Amino acid sequence: MLGRVNHVAIAVPDLAAATAAYRDTLGAVVSAAEALPEHGVTVVFVELPNTKVELLEPLGPQSPIAAFLEKNPSGGMHHICYEVSDIIAARDQMLAAGARVLGNGEPKTGAHGKPVLFLHPKDFFGTLIELEQV
Amino acid sequence: MLGRVNHVAIAVPDLAAATAAYRDTLGAVVSAAEALPEHGVTVVFVELPNTKVELLEPLGPQSPIAAFLEKNPSGGMHHICYEVSDIIAARDQMLAAGARVLGNGEPKTGAHGKPVLFLHPKDFFGTLIELEQV
Repeated sequence: MLGRVNHVAIAVPDLAAATAAYRDTLGAVVSAAEALPEHGVTVVFVELPNTKVELLEPLGPQSPIAAFLEKNPSGGMHHICYEVSDIIAARDQMLAAGARVLGNGEPKTGAHGKPVLFLHPKDFFGTLIELEQV
Repeated sequence: MLGRVNHVAIAVPDLAAATAAYRDTLGAVVSAAEALPEHGVTVVFVELPNTKVELLEPLGPQSPIAAFLEKNPSGGMHHICYEVSDIIAARDQMLAAGARVLGNGEPKTGAHGKPVLFLHPKDFFGTLIELEQV
């Protein structure tokens, strides 16, 4: 079922400083910062030849990464996103296997404008997994 | 400088259970478990179309992932490995930029038999970065 790794998301407390480190120290190609208020983050895309890293900074009072940054004030890897061809089939496969889908179980529109679901990290050994239909 | 994402490493307390979850629940192609006593881990490769996830379980008393699992008993994303074409040039670029290379600064032979270095997570917003010469 799992397709490509679409991105690895890294939560950071200071997006400008993190962007500079990836661009200037690591020599990666980085995008301009993009505010996504409906997702509670500002994002910078780090373009690698085979996938993306997304640097996320909290935006607004209800940011979904705020609690993570409280626990990990320096930042850290927040989730990994895999592509799937059919988000509903993927959801049903997860539920049939006893894995928990976060929220109400219905796909939401993710930061790339495509249907996404998040799986409970406790069911996957501490890793928050996003599934994105592409 | 940064090339492909070679792998994302996930530390897990129970490799057999994690392998089953990736294979049976997520429907991924997984390798047989491979013990790497000189690296203090047993590894299973999760093969995605564009990169790999490596599931790591501690092996032996000096495992480099033991402290991480003490802090994160359920497991979690441990590091991300980027490919570089010249590990010495990459090391010198890191040091010139003021980033810290772990250990004595000399590349070691990594789990894939290639020269690797690890960068200090405090210099990269809580993310442990491995550079591998390919």
